[in-house]
Amino acid sequence: MPQFAPVTPDVVAELEEIVGAKYVIHSEPDLSVYGRDETEDLQYAAEVAVRPDATDQVARIMKLAHDRGICVTPRGAGTGLSGGALPVFGGIVLCVDRMNRILELDEDNLVVRVQPGVITGVLQDTVAEKGLYYPPDPASHGSCMIGGNIAENAGGPHCVKYGLTKDYVLSLEAVMPNGDVFRTGGKLKKDVAGYNLTQLLVGSEGTLAVVTEATLRLIPMPTVKRTILAPFDSLDTAAKGIVAVYQSRIIPAALELVEKAALEAAEEHLGRKVPYGDAEAQILLELDGYDEEAVDRDLMRAGEVLLEAGALDAMLADTPAKTTELWTVRKCLGEAVKKQAAYIECDTAVPPDKVPDLLRGVRKVAAEYGIQQISYGHAGDGNIHVNVLTDSPDLEERERQLRPAVKAILQVSVDLGGTITGEHGVGCAQSRYLHMCRDDIALAAMRSIKDAFDPKGILNPGKVLPAEVPPPVAAGSVAQA
Amino acid sequence: MPQFAPVTPDVVAELEEIVGAKYVIHSEPDLSVYGRDETEDLQYAAEVAVRPDATDQVARIMKLAHDRGICVTPRGAGTGLSGGALPVFGGIVLCVDRMNRILELDEDNLVVRVQPGVITGVLQDTVAEKGLYYPPDPASHGSCMIGGNIAENAGGPHCVKYGLTKDYVLSLEAVMPNGDVFRTGGKLKKDVAGYNLTQLLVGSEGTLAVVTEATLRLIPMPTVKRTILAPFDSLDTAAKGIVAVYQSRIIPAALELVEKAALEAAEEHLGRKVPYGDAEAQILLELDGYDEEAVDRDLMRAGEVLLEAGALDAMLADTPAKTTELWTVRKCLGEAVKKQAAYIECDTAVPPDKVPDLLRGVRKVAAEYGIQQISYGHAGDGNIHVNVLTDSPDLEERERQLRPAVKAILQVSVDLGGTITGEHGVGCAQSRYLHMCRDDIALAAMRSIKDAFDPKGILNPGKVLPAEVPPPVAAGSVAQA
Repeated sequence: MPQFAPVTPDVVAELEEIVGAKYVIHSEPDLSVYGRDETEDLQYAAEVAVRPDATDQVARIMKLAHDRGICVTPRGAGTGLSGGALPVFGGIVLCVDRMNRILELDEDNLVVRVQPGVITGVLQDTVAEKGLYYPPDPASHGSCMIGGNIAENAGGPHCVKYGLTKDYVLSLEAVMPNGDVFRTGGKLKKDVAGYNLTQLLVGSEGTLAVVTEATLRLIPMPTVKRTILAPFDSLDTAAKGIVAVYQSRIIPAALELVEKAALEAAEEHLGRKVPYGDAEAQILLELDGYDEEAVDRDLMRAGEVLLEAGALDAMLADTPAKTTELWTVRKCLGEAVKKQAAYIECDTAVPPDKVPDLLRGVRKVAAEYGIQQISYGHAGDGNIHVNVLTDSPDLEERERQLRPAVKAILQVSVDLGGTITGEHGVGCAQSRYLHMCRDDIALAAMRSIKDAFDPKGILNPGKVLPAEVPPPVAAGSVAQA
Repeated sequence: MPQFAPVTPDVVAELEEIVGAKYVIHSEPDLSVYGRDETEDLQYAAEVAVRPDATDQVARIMKLAHDRGICVTPRGAGTGLSGGALPVFGGIVLCVDRMNRILELDEDNLVVRVQPGVITGVLQDTVAEKGLYYPPDPASHGSCMIGGNIAENAGGPHCVKYGLTKDYVLSLEAVMPNGDVFRTGGKLKKDVAGYNLTQLLVGSEGTLAVVTEATLRLIPMPTVKRTILAPFDSLDTAAKGIVAVYQSRIIPAALELVEKAALEAAEEHLGRKVPYGDAEAQILLELDGYDEEAVDRDLMRAGEVLLEAGALDAMLADTPAKTTELWTVRKCLGEAVKKQAAYIECDTAVPPDKVPDLLRGVRKVAAEYGIQQISYGHAGDGNIHVNVLTDSPDLEERERQLRPAVKAILQVSVDLGGTITGEHGVGCAQSRYLHMCRDDIALAAMRSIKDAFDPKGILNPGKVLPAEVPPPVAAGSVAQA
């Protein structure tokens, strides 16, 4: 395992000089917040957390860490699901939450310039006031930050039509591991001047550079939204409904799948019955656009396609209130599953027509290993979140019970032409599986890029690329989570 | 300048062993074809050209070159405009034109898998038969190849709505400079397993690896297309019309600008008058979609917006024949300008609302340097092709007359927040200007990536990154071009 220099009192003093003493956190209980994110219930021990307010402060922090050989873990809101923000080797946690300004909303060019600590939902609401739309919408959009979204190339339900975070990042300002600041471009949709550093940084999980500013593309806000809920009496039929939608050439704005165990978890979480809660599976299909009649015509056609594919019903939501009601179930699932038991989440993604095979494979694995699983997700993208559960709050016991099944489920995904992570990122939680879907040459190329950007290996070590990392200092019980 | 090993007879023999003697070109006149592309009229001297038929042949060629220290220039159709396919240091030209198979058209997942030698237009026609659409459409789409499109991240008129080549590449198979073969992913829209090698390779101009297979995303083919031609009595008013379209939140499928000098060149080229050929400038706006009534409503609104912005007319094309007629003018411009005189093309791109300033700046530069210029292009993306002309067929004379103006025009673009190349690529033609729009830190990062992938520097040397390259062996007269 790599060795890093410790955070000594004089380093803390220098950090205080850079950002002000108020924004350097070096003692409990406040420090422990910076040792966890939303990845299961893992807890690591940061040595110090620092909250810069400007790019030059980030640059000075990185230079200090680089000169001293101290590792740095960049952090946004800490809502990640793959441990990208966990300080697995201790060191400095560099939290960008104070860099939360929307620097420029350029309505003529449909572009917004933001700092990394802007909350995604705040950005979305701000641009919506001008009739504009920033589509990437991870489940945590109410609390997650753009910097983290960029680091992880965050997805969400509407990516099936509108693309991922990467599809909205036009250019970045970032700080290299040694403190050098650079920009990758401007407010341009077309710019092929040199290698695409923008797209290399998006999804690099804060291991290559620290993003300090982003220029994002916006689109006109769709003025019409319609949602259909389609219950099915078998998971397999529902999965085939997904393919039928593609075959019909309908372009859904969202196409989600929820299986019965997830519906039950939702009912327990919400404390009430949900529409068609006894279905074996549900499809939630959203259509949107700028022309009411056109969207309504598509809506009718989509309903017919789903009924022909075997849906028991096609329940339409044509008012905001009804739409919210249908989406409530889907949106609470992350929390609902978390409340049920300790779990490990498999962020599988396969070609959409392989979703039926994926779900069959997952059930087979669950039966074989005798574990409970709950599946739901962005089926239109083939991206299914499979949560495997255990009642044991003990980390070692949980690992022993679930880890073989997790690996088998990811192998099902890979064998179907899929990946080990569709939208959550690799972080430290999935890096041991990366070799399952990337060959040795590709992995060596990634490693060489990391070495080129960060020869000392101080920036977010133990993430993305396979690496041995220390065990967490604690893993809480289900009650903690 | 770097030194490479020569292509000796035994190397030629080995190449013949790999691909068959028929597909190794090592003598004139056939060899000279591989020494030029569509970048002005520059001619270099390849030592040998080789036309592999499969990935393993590409791998063996690269391993041979790598072992011997011979440089390799990958080549598709040779339609590039920045010299990406020019063998500036001689060596081996690796032409992928025989790798021209559409390997799989997956209608259920809206994905196509192709070899790099597939002609873009052939791909488009093939998927269109299934009601599917591959939008990137560089002017050369009838002859250019997907491999070259990927290398250069090619654009085209419809990118303003649908995005560039990069937005359609889901994953790649590629060969490293040392001959190692790797894949970057699968048929997945969501896949965040490690660094985004796919997007790093797209637009890297064949300097990092040779693409041997691409998995491309498709979308349902729009069923309705409408075009408006709007003439203006001043270039400035026309440019403001572009901004007005954005402000109105209309989403054009194409938004092109043609100035009077270009209209004149078109009339000369076509040998007839063109509609509103005496206008100072024209906007060509296309709308498309899947619902006739919705598109027609947008069409009416777009016409009103353009008229309010000062258009003299808004001429609608609502049949395929009329649409083709309106587009004929725009599409012939590359050829039309080429026929007029020797030229250097500046592939400027600025934020769309800066197009008026760009055009004013270009005219100022032209006046200052006493040169003729013709501007047209993808104004909706802010991407304007500015051609500066000279009557001199002599290369040195042309350089002396035009080069200072070229640099000044690119500086206008950069000063407006723009770039030195929007869609043509850097190649060897623009690499001297790269520093104008990328800072030293970004350039050093690019250089470190190149060194990581290609430590021997044998793959497409003299491209993208600033480098001294030998002069062309010849530059033809205007008549040649």
